[in-house]
Amino acid sequence: MNNIHSLDGQSGIVVADAGCILQTLQEYTAERGYLLPLDIGSKGSCQIGGNVATNAGGCYFNRFGGLHGTVCGMEVVLPQGQVIKLNLEGSDNIEGYGGCHRKDNTGYDLKHLFIGAEGTLGVITKVAMACPRLPNSKNVALLICESYAAVLEVLAAAKEELGEVLSAMELMDWSTLSLVQQHMSNKEEFMILNEILRFEGSQNQAPLYLLVETQGSNAEHDLSKMDSFQTRLFESSIISNGYIATDSKRIGSFWNIRESCNPSVALDGYVYKYDVSVPIEDYMEVAAEVKECLSSKASFPLAKVCVWGHLADGNAHVNVVTPGLFDKDEAFASYVDEAVYGSVLKRKGSISAEHGIGQSKRDILKRVKDKSALDVMVQLKAMFDPRGIMNPGKVLLSEGKSATSFDS
Amino acid sequence: MNNIHSLDGQSGIVVADAGCILQTLQEYTAERGYLLPLDIGSKGSCQIGGNVATNAGGCYFNRFGGLHGTVCGMEVVLPQGQVIKLNLEGSDNIEGYGGCHRKDNTGYDLKHLFIGAEGTLGVITKVAMACPRLPNSKNVALLICESYAAVLEVLAAAKEELGEVLSAMELMDWSTLSLVQQHMSNKEEFMILNEILRFEGSQNQAPLYLLVETQGSNAEHDLSKMDSFQTRLFESSIISNGYIATDSKRIGSFWNIRESCNPSVALDGYVYKYDVSVPIEDYMEVAAEVKECLSSKASFPLAKVCVWGHLADGNAHVNVVTPGLFDKDEAFASYVDEAVYGSVLKRKGSISAEHGIGQSKRDILKRVKDKSALDVMVQLKAMFDPRGIMNPGKVLLSEGKSATSFDS
Ligand SMILES: Cc1cc2nc3c(=O)[nH]c(=O)nc-3n(C[C@H](O)[C@H](O)[C@H](O)COP(=O)(O)OP(=O)(O)OC[C@H]3O[C@@H](n4cnc5c(N)ncnc54)[C@H](O)[C@@H]3O)c2cc1C
Ligand SMILES: Cc1cc2nc3c(=O)[nH]c(=O)nc-3n(C[C@H](O)[C@H](O)[C@H](O)COP(=O)(O)OP(=O)(O)OC[C@H]3O[C@@H](n4cnc5c(N)ncnc54)[C@H](O)[C@@H]3O)c2cc1C
Repeated sequence: MNNIHSLDGQSGIVVADAGCILQTLQEYTAERGYLLPLDIGSKGSCQIGGNVATNAGGCYFNRFGGLHGTVCGMEVVLPQGQVIKLNLEGSDNIEGYGGCHRKDNTGYDLKHLFIGAEGTLGVITKVAMACPRLPNSKNVALLICESYAAVLEVLAAAKEELGEVLSAMELMDWSTLSLVQQHMSNKEEFMILNEILRFEGSQNQAPLYLLVETQGSNAEHDLSKMDSFQTRLFESSIISNGYIATDSKRIGSFWNIRESCNPSVALDGYVYKYDVSVPIEDYMEVAAEVKECLSSKASFPLAKVCVWGHLADGNAHVNVVTPGLFDKDEAFASYVDEAVYGSVLKRKGSISAEHGIGQSKRDILKRVKDKSALDVMVQLKAMFDPRGIMNPGKVLLSEGKSATSFDS
Repeated sequence: MNNIHSLDGQSGIVVADAGCILQTLQEYTAERGYLLPLDIGSKGSCQIGGNVATNAGGCYFNRFGGLHGTVCGMEVVLPQGQVIKLNLEGSDNIEGYGGCHRKDNTGYDLKHLFIGAEGTLGVITKVAMACPRLPNSKNVALLICESYAAVLEVLAAAKEELGEVLSAMELMDWSTLSLVQQHMSNKEEFMILNEILRFEGSQNQAPLYLLVETQGSNAEHDLSKMDSFQTRLFESSIISNGYIATDSKRIGSFWNIRESCNPSVALDGYVYKYDVSVPIEDYMEVAAEVKECLSSKASFPLAKVCVWGHLADGNAHVNVVTPGLFDKDEAFASYVDEAVYGSVLKRKGSISAEHGIGQSKRDILKRVKDKSALDVMVQLKAMFDPRGIMNPGKVLLSEGKSATSFDS
């Protein structure tokens, strides 16, 4: 279940078993001149089937789009045992049909139902994805801003001046990066953090840090875009400072800093994790409101709020950590839940941008999702899985007149 | 039903009523610095709701992806009367939720069921789409190749050298362009056609014509890429000639030639139309096999095969026209059907790349679609529309144990 079956040299479509490790698939396509358009921190362990089942987003989403756009074929085993091939070779009951193509408008596009269904509707066994050509040039900038207003100016400038080569736009706050530094064992990355953390914010506001990546087909053009972008931002005082990495070692260091956010915060204490979508202007507002709530809560006076995430998508990872305390406190968890979700809902945000519902957000789903949409979800679950055997209790609660009550 | 409600200046998400004309929406977003990532020949008359209902593809598909990737919110009226808001503001039964975001992983992503369902599952009433920034530079090249092998070399070079600025890659064959010239009333475009049609193919093979478009953020970089791409192709004799348009008038002429393929062929006679996906290497093979079949068929000795389409997606519009005869011949239609579909299925292609199933391809669907997938489609139809009132007879046939037999 972890074979890679094919990579079409013309279309860039790769076909692999669901059990293939994401990083293995990335390396396979890269060696053949194609970029797998998905990259997330857990690439070394997660599997492409799991990625599709959770509709993983990650750092390339803004440039290359999400899995609903890039997955172009799928094999699924349904709860009742049927195997369906969706735009994939191998159905023995049909005439000829079955290659994988970028475009196929032959009836309802069923594969999308399984993308993000978290395994509750069927088991994905094979995935086909359309890959763009591997860009041959990559640059990464680390930029320091003194305010969120400045961050928004950088975002606008990046869309305008870096345009089509912009491939990632990640934000990290000061609380997060100081924890990353505290737990950083790599000496070079420690020194980079030392350097960037010495800049101080103004007006009692800690600085914010941006990782901006470009990927393109012409090294000279790409670097010229990145250089003039950064120079202009610096000269007009939109950024306090900026560092550009062009060689793969230093690019790796910049990304390692970004990917250390999650594990470093976890080394500090128990982490109450949230993954939300909000209007981009309000990106830092949820954290600010949560801090405000926490300041009036005496039980955990040292709790810190750490924010990082995919700025260009309005997708913020908001994390509340209790330093030195590694056990979950249920009462505190409920309190933080209310603070975070209250702030997100007030802004018409989404309570789950890319991490899904699972079991822990199942109850809040009922409060936030369109009632008719929820009804349809329950009917779909009943239709596909009348005996409720697929990941029971995930996404939808099986109670009263819910999925399992349609049992046949 | 044709209002445009909002365009978010940060995320580029536009929200419009389903009845909004595509071109109106394109102009609205362009005036505000965003590109609507959908462009098709019928833009002046088709509506965004119809585009989504048919999962329209078009010329930008290869660069900006399909509607499954770009549509990020939807309002749908279900056959039983419920209105569902999918990632769109306005549900009155829920708490706060409901803005439109790029990322939202809160349960099954129902909007994809309605994309391409051709109105058989519900009526789309509002659509939200994520738009990229409007590129500020555009160039179009018209290139002439003497063989399909050369076309493939151009495609590979375009992906490599134009990379991220490549925005369209359209192929037209000689039979098509000579009909376009024959019916062209615009003098300038007639002259362009006159110029390019005078090149002769080698080895008894008529030339092939490519329209290659770039769109990017830096006019100097983009033109330099296009120039060196075309120069290299010419110097290495991969193309017989090439013309670059950089001003909007000439760019418009090149595109008008491309968009005249469909109407010009229709002026010549009745057109037996096919819209298929095939492996890119086999793009011209279907037409070649159909020609072969027609040559052995005495009834319409003058029938011509015209091919054009979206090369980079492997999506070919194969058209058989009977010059001077404007009525459909049912027997001939069946004969051509068999020839085209036989050739497509042999290559594991798709019988409908972007035009959908409607009524005319409903029967062939049963021959080509995975049996289990078809079963699920019928069940879905029955679940959403138990009385079979939505576009009856489209996509799925209502006979025997089909959709309507699930009537409640
Ligand atoms: C360090 C780290 C960083 C991360 N960064 C990101 C990020 O940037 N963006 C992002 O979106 N996510 C991120 N994630 C979460 C991410 O969604 C998951 O890591 C990954 O997509 C899940 O894949 P997995 O193989 O680990 O699945 P698992 O964790 O094993 O399973 C996840 C769910 O999918 C189901 N499932 C798994 N395989 C299948 C299958 N073949 N068919 C049907 N259902 C299946 C399981 O039942 C389960 O419900 C991160 C996680 C970690 C640990
Ligand atoms: C000159 C020309 C060029 C074209 N080029 C392309 C191309 O390059 N690529 C491509 O993909 N297509 C192309 N098409 C076909 C294209 O798919 C349609 O023109 C367009 O997408 C349909 O939109 P419409 O508003 O005209 O829908 P209609 O033709 O009115 O309807 C199409 C179907 O969708 C349903 N429908 C319409 N509105 C809704 C709604 N709001 N909710 C639910 N169902 C609805 C209808 O019931 C019908 O079944 C072209 C057509 C023409 C005439």
